Order: sequence, then structure tokens, then C-alpha cells
Amino acid sequence: MDIKEQYTGSILVIGDEILSGRTQDTNSNHIAKKMTEIGINISDIRVIPDNKEIIIESINELRKKTDYLFTTGGIGPTHDDITAESVAFAFGVEININQEAFDILKDYYDGIGSTFNEARQRMARIPAGATLIDNPISKAPGFKLENVFVFAGIPKIMIAMLENSIKYLEKGKIVHSKSIKVNAVEGDIAKTLRLLDSEESELKIGSYPFFNSDQDFGVNVVLKSVNKEKLEKSVDKFKTFLNENSMSYSN
Amino acid sequence: MDIKEQYTGSILVIGDEILSGRTQDTNSNHIAKKMTEIGINISDIRVIPDNKEIIIESINELRKKTDYLFTTGGIGPTHDDITAESVAFAFGVEININQEAFDILKDYYDGIGSTFNEARQRMARIPAGATLIDNPISKAPGFKLENVFVFAGIPKIMIAMLENSIKYLEKGKIVHSKSIKVNAVEGDIAKTLRLLDSEESELKIGSYPFFNSDQDFGVNVVLKSVNKEKLEKSVDKFKTFLNENSMSYSN
Repeated sequence: MDIKEQYTGSILVIGDEILSGRTQDTNSNHIAKKMTEIGINISDIRVIPDNKEIIIESINELRKKTDYLFTTGGIGPTHDDITAESVAFAFGVEININQEAFDILKDYYDGIGSTFNEARQRMARIPAGATLIDNPISKAPGFKLENVFVFAGIPKIMIAMLENSIKYLEKGKIVHSKSIKVNAVEGDIAKTLRLLDSEESELKIGSYPFFNSDQDFGVNVVLKSVNKEKLEKSVDKFKTFLNENSMSYSN
Repeated sequence: MDIKEQYTGSILVIGDEILSGRTQDTNSNHIAKKMTEIGINISDIRVIPDNKEIIIESINELRKKTDYLFTTGGIGPTHDDITAESVAFAFGVEININQEAFDILKDYYDGIGSTFNEARQRMARIPAGATLIDNPISKAPGFKLENVFVFAGIPKIMIAMLENSIKYLEKGKIVHSKSIKVNAVEGDIAKTLRLLDSEESELKIGSYPFFNSDQDFGVNVVLKSVNKEKLEKSVDKFKTFLNENSMSYSN
């Protein structure tokens, strides 16, 4: 079953440091949570290397596949920061120094008494037609080109840019959800979940076992629906089953 | 530049709970780290939903693209656990109850006094031709079919399955790496990094800015090479530059 009237999104995490395991990506989790809150359904997350051809190919695939594409990483001043030029290439537009970005950066570096050198000026290169996204922390802006949002990789900056981008997004129908922590193993509730799932077309059920120790294990069951009333009915049914089978649970 | 004589790998994280942001994926970081240690270069990480068609398509793409494919998630007993049957479909092989897996699970549930019910028996369904991967924690095995390794999503179990799979992997040439924490902003070292990068074909340089506060920021520079001697030479050159420009750093 599908939950209708939702927008879709994808996330492209650009960076060798994620692929080598050096850095744990937390940006995509942050974006995904935020999008879920506003009814945008993330269908793809990809991590790819700092490679221009791969970045271009991935951008062109995902910007057509989903309503919104969010990229993180690769917009700093060094040789491996090639996201902006890859976005320009993907859209077939030019990339030059953007005067607005240049002025923001020049003011910033002048203000802190640092040289606005060639490497830093690279960060003012923005694809033609893009709208800048404010970076309140280190100033070098992100940007939005059509449905593609280009964010920094540093989590603190990424989060700020994401906040500054919410205004551009169409919000979908909110998915209501209810989480129930069941003190049982998945195998004991699987049949019932399958039944609930087949009975109600607007319902989506996730079952997430956890296993902290021999004493502390169970399943987090998450029921979701855009229809709040039907969701509550299904939750009641499930709790009735748990009670009838003497399984303990908590909300 | 490419680092030669390395094997490649990809990771497919299967699960709606990651895409909704409910769960932070840590499995792919763990796999990536481990593979880097043994000279297998992860080139793709993807997160996809619990959707059979998408799982099949992704498996078929990635198992051909890279030497090894590791999947996580979707091998439990519930209705949304569809990874095993998707793998079977992707390879065009049958999936039936595997006697070895059945016996392991039956022994386990008999031993703890639980019913080995229909839902649990699903976990004994393994694609034809696959080799089981031991799960010392909750017993339901993972499996390996040709170059595809199918792991559980629960991190503790995933880690154990990964450990039990290392013996099947060809190890590549180890990449040596050296990390230097520079107390400067990226823009001040970008030109030098670019120069170092162009001078030495076997060298790969990553530059990872961090920004904890106005007082605590800088760049972690990571130099990598399969050639240890050349790596050390480049590290020395970089440190000389830092010293000449009075930039402080630590290893």
C-alpha cells in the first residue's frame, strides 16, 4: 500500500570520508526526520565518492526521480570540493563567481582579518540561476537550483542550511504514527502484524526488533497512516491482541 | 588518481525506518571501516525502502558493479522482511526452507521453550545455493550467495555476521593513511593540498573541516597511499609547509 498525497525526496551524501568509514554520516538522518515531519517521503539515500562523473550522473538520476534532491558535502574551498561545478554540469548551466556570494564572503573574511584568497573565492562559484541559501556559521552559502538543494557537509552548517530551505518546500499530507514497544520477540507478533497490514489499505506497519541484552529485547512496532481515525482503530486492535496473549507493552 | 589492486564493495541498507529518519543507520559505517582495513574500497552505499522490486533492482545493479555487495536488514520473521526472497529473485534461484537453518532455529526455540511457529520458520527460507552465515546472538542465520552477503539489520547481530564473513573475502592492498589535525581554516591550506595532490599520483588527499565552536575549528587532513614511503614523503612536505607558515597542527 502507498500513502498518497505525499511529496518525495532523495538525499545524496557526497564524500570519500563516509565511504571509507572515517566519518559517520548523520546528515541524512537529520534531513530524513525533518522531511517526515512535513510530509515529504525520502525514498533514496545514496553515498557516493568525490568523483565528478558519478556526482553528475547521480544528481541527474535523483532530481528526475523525486520531487526534491538534497545533497550534502563538497562545497568547501579545497580540490576535492566539486559539488557546485557538478551541479552546474548536470543542469547544463554555467558556473561563475556569484556577486552576492562573493560580497558575503569578502565582508566575512575582511571582518575577521583573513585573506579572501583564491581558494576561498572558489566558494563564491555558484551555478547560474541558483538561489543562495544562507550559512549563518561560516558564511559560504549553499544554494538551490530548481528542485536540487546543495548543502555543506559539516553537520552544524548543514542543519542551518536545511532550516533556511524549508520555506521552499511543498508540504505533503502528514503521516500520523504510533509506536508501541512490545516485550516479545518478532516471531510471536508477526502473524498479527501481517493480518493488520492486509486489513487496512491506508496503514503501514513497521516492525523493528531491538536486542540490548538477553534480558532486554523486544520489538518496536510502528503503525502509520495519513488517516488518524483509522490509525487509532488499528492501534486498538493490536493492543487487544497483545492483551489477549498476555504480552506486555509500553507506548 | 586511483589506488590500484583494491577490491570494491557496495552496501545496501534495506529499511523504511532509516528513510523515515526513525533509525540512524550505523551498520554501513561499521562495514565501511572494516572493509577499508582489509583493502576493500566501498564505492556505493544506498538506503532503499522495504519494496521487493526496488530491492531486486538494486541488488542486481550493485552485485555486478562491485566485487562484493553487503545488504543489511529485512531478514526477520515479519511481513516486511523480504530481503531473502528478493535475493533469490535477483539471482533467479528458488527459495525454500533450508534444512540446516531450520535445524538451527528449531534447536534454539526448543531450547528456550518458545514455539517454532510459522513466522519463525520463514527465517529458515534461504535461496538455493547460498552458504549460511552464523548468527551467534539470535540464531537466525544470514547468508552469502556468490558475491552477495545478506546480514541482519540489528547492529549487534550485523557485526557478528560481518566478522563471520571476513574469511570469504579477498583482501586488497592495504591503504596506508596519515591524519593531521591542522588549526587553520581550509582556505589557508587548499592551494598546498592541491599541489601535493597533483605532484604524487599514488597519493589521495582528503580535507575534512570541523567546526565545534568559534574557538575550536580546523581541518583534518588525511593523506592516503598504498605506497608507504611516498606517503611519508608527502606528509613531510605538508608539515614543512605548515611550519613555514606558522600553522599549528597535531597528529
